[in-house]
Amino acid sequence: MNIQTYSQQLIDAGRLFHQRGWVPATGGNFSARLDAGRMLITASGCHKGELTPADFLEAGFDGVPIGAARKASYETLLHCQLYRHDAAIGAVLHTHSIANTVLSRRLRSIRLAGYELLKLLPGIGTHDASVEVPVFTNDQDIARLSATVDAHMKRHPATPAYLIAGHGLYAWGADVAQARWRVEALEFMFECELHS
Amino acid sequence: MNIQTYSQQLIDAGRLFHQRGWVPATGGNFSARLDAGRMLITASGCHKGELTPADFLEAGFDGVPIGAARKASYETLLHCQLYRHDAAIGAVLHTHSIANTVLSRRLRSIRLAGYELLKLLPGIGTHDASVEVPVFTNDQDIARLSATVDAHMKRHPATPAYLIAGHGLYAWGADVAQARWRVEALEFMFECELHS
Amino acid sequence: MNIQTYSQQLIDAGRLFHQRGWVPATGGNFSARLDAGRMLITASGCHKGELTPADFLEAGFDGVPIGAARKASYETLLHCQLYRHDAAIGAVLHTHSIANTVLSRRLRSIRLAGYELLKLLPGIGTHDASVEVPVFTNDQDIARLSATVDAHMKRHPATPAYLIAGHGLYAWGADVAQARWRVEALEFMFECELHS
Amino acid sequence: MNIQTYSQQLIDAGRLFHQRGWVPATGGNFSARLDAGRMLITASGCHKGELTPADFLEAGFDGVPIGAARKASYETLLHCQLYRHDAAIGAVLHTHSIANTVLSRRLRSIRLAGYELLKLLPGIGTHDASVEVPVFTNDQDIARLSATVDAHMKRHPATPAYLIAGHGLYAWGADVAQARWRVEALEFMFECELHS
Repeated sequence: MNIQTYSQQLIDAGRLFHQRGWVPATGGNFSARLDAGRMLITASGCHKGELTPADFLEAGFDGVPIGAARKASYETLLHCQLYRHDAAIGAVLHTHSIANTVLSRRLRSIRLAGYELLKLLPGIGTHDASVEVPVFTNDQDIARLSATVDAHMKRHPATPAYLIAGHGLYAWGADVAQARWRVEALEFMFECELHS
Repeated sequence: MNIQTYSQQLIDAGRLFHQRGWVPATGGNFSARLDAGRMLITASGCHKGELTPADFLEAGFDGVPIGAARKASYETLLHCQLYRHDAAIGAVLHTHSIANTVLSRRLRSIRLAGYELLKLLPGIGTHDASVEVPVFTNDQDIARLSATVDAHMKRHPATPAYLIAGHGLYAWGADVAQARWRVEALEFMFECELHS
Repeated sequence: MNIQTYSQQLIDAGRLFHQRGWVPATGGNFSARLDAGRMLITASGCHKGELTPADFLEAGFDGVPIGAARKASYETLLHCQLYRHDAAIGAVLHTHSIANTVLSRRLRSIRLAGYELLKLLPGIGTHDASVEVPVFTNDQDIARLSATVDAHMKRHPATPAYLIAGHGLYAWGADVAQARWRVEALEFMFECELHS
Repeated sequence: MNIQTYSQQLIDAGRLFHQRGWVPATGGNFSARLDAGRMLITASGCHKGELTPADFLEAGFDGVPIGAARKASYETLLHCQLYRHDAAIGAVLHTHSIANTVLSRRLRSIRLAGYELLKLLPGIGTHDASVEVPVFTNDQDIARLSATVDAHMKRHPATPAYLIAGHGLYAWGADVAQARWRVEALEFMFECELHS
C-alpha cells in the first residue's frame, strides 16, 4: 500500500469521527506505519474531520519529520512510542469524545467487563472477560508523557488502549480498519459506562 | 425478489443503523429469508454500516453456508432459530445500541407499556398494552444460546423481540422494511426507558 | 403554490426530522392546507423520513380522502381539528421524539419559561414569558381525542402546541417553514427540560 | 478575501452547527469583519443551517445596514461590540445548543479547567489552566445588553467567550475557521460539564 491509500483511510476515519463528535476543533490525531522506521501522521493544527492529503507528513519513530514543510502533530511522540513498543501496530488513532473525556476526568482507570464488543480488543475472544484501560494524567511535556505510557505498557503488555485525563483516547490496530473498529468499540463501551 | 434486492435493503438498513450508532465496529448482523430453507446473511467480521454486495452469503436454516467462500456471521444459528420457529418471519436484524446494551446489562426483562409505537410490534393494535422483551445471558456457545431462545419462544410465543445482555437486540418482521421499523420502534422505546 | 411544492416541503421536513430521530418507524404525520376546505396529508403507514410524492393524498377537513387510492393517516382528524379551529393555520407537523415522549409520560402539562426560542411561538415577543404545552391522554379513538383537543383549545386559545402522552407533539404554523421552525424550537426546549 | 468567500465560510459553519443541533429554528447568527468599519452579517429571521448568499448583508459597527434590502440580525449590536472592542476579532459566531442553554440557565458563570481543548481559547497554552465563561441575564433590549457585555469585557479582558442565559453562546476568532473551532471546543466542554 502506498501513502495515498493510507492518507485516504485516515481521511475517511476522521470524517466518521467528526460526525460522531469525537474530534472537535483541532482535537485528535492519526497515523499509519509506512515501514519499519517511518509513519504517516497528521500535521499539527488541522481539523481531523476535514483532512486533505496535504494535511499529512512522514516522520521517523523518533518523531522527526522527513523532508516536510509542515510541523508534525504536537503529540507525535505518543505515536512513536506505540510503533516502537510493538512492531505489529500498523495504525494509531487518537480521539477526543465527550464520553472518554468525562470518564477520564473522573476515574484513574476504566474497567470494561461483560461487553460482547470486548472481542474487538487484542487477545480477547469472549465477552466474559475484563480489561483495564489506564488513565494517565495529562502533561504538556509529551516526551515525559510518552515515557510514562511506555513504562506502563512494559509492565502491562495487555493494555488494550489508554486515556489521557481530559484529553482523550489512544487506540491502535494492525491496520487503519482494525484501529478504527477498536475506537468504535471502545467509545461505545465508554458511552455505556457513562449511562450506567 | 432476488438476492440483489434483499442485499440492497440490508445494506441500506445497515447504513441507517450506523448513522444512529447501533452497529459499532463489527457489531450486529442481518439476514433475509430467500425461500423455505435458505437465507441471505451478512458474512463474519465486516462492518454492518459499510456493507457491499460481497459481504453476504447464502446459508441453510441449519446455519451451513451454501457454496460460499466466506464464513457466515458468528451468530448465524440465532437467525436460523427464528426462521425455523415461524415461517412468517422474512427478515432478522440484530443491532447493538448504547440504550439496548445498558438496559440489557441492568435488567432481566424489559417491560414496555403505554407507548404509541408499541403498535409496530406483532399483534398489538393499541398503545394501551404492555410487552415483555426478555434479556438472555450472553453465551459464546451460540448453539446453546439459540436453544435457550427457542425454548423461551415456544413457551412465550408473543415475544416481540429479545435482547442478549451486553450484546444487543434481535428483532424480525415479515420483510426487511417491517423488521427495520420494529428496530427503530424498539430502540426508540429503549432510549425513552433509559431517560426515565 | 401547488401540490408538488407542498409535498416537497413536507418531504424535506421529514428527512430532517428523521436525521434528528423524531419520526421513528412509521411515527409522525404531516399536512399542509391547500385551500379553505382541503389539505394535503401523509398516507397511513409510510416512513416519514423517506417520503415520496406518492405518499401524500388530499382530504377534506372532515378527514375524508378526495379521490385517493391510499388511506389517509390514522390521525387525520387531529389535523382537521386544527385547520377548522384557525383559518390562519397553513401546516401541521406531528413528531415523535425521545424528549417529547419521555416528558409527556411524566407530566400533565409542560411549562416553558425563560427561553429565547419562546419567541418562535405564536404571539410571543420576549424570552421573559411562559407557555403551557398541554399533555393529552393517548386515545386510539381519534374522533374522541380530537374533540378533547378542540374543547381545550377553545378554552385556551393561546395553546402554542400540544402533546399526546407517549405519542408525540403536534405543532403548526402559517406555512410549512414556520411549523417546522416551531417543531425545532419546541423539541429543543423539551430536550433542555429533560436535562434540567 | 471577498464577500463570497466569507459568506461561504459562514454558510458551511451553519450547516455543521445545524447537524449538531446548535442552531435550532432561526436561532444563532454569524458575522465576519470586512474591514476596519464594516462586517458581513446574517439577515434577521433566516435558518442558520440553510443559509444562502442572499441571507447576508453588510453593516457598519454601529449596526446600521449598508444599502441592504433586508433587516440585519436582531442581535447585530452584540457583534458590533466585539468588533469595536478588539480589532483582532475577524469573525463572531453565536450558537444555541442544548448544553449551553441548560448550563446558562443553571449557573451565573461557567468555569472550565483541566481540558486539553482549553488550548483552543485565546492566550491559553496548557490544559492546566482555568477560564471563566460569564453568563449574562437575557435582555430583549440589545443595546443595553451589549453595553453590559462591553463593560464586563473591559473589566475582564481575558474573557474567552460568553453566554446569555437561555439564549446561547457568543464566541469569536481571528477568522471564521478559528471562531468555529472555538465554538466546537466550547460546546464540547459544555457538554462534558453537563455530563459531570
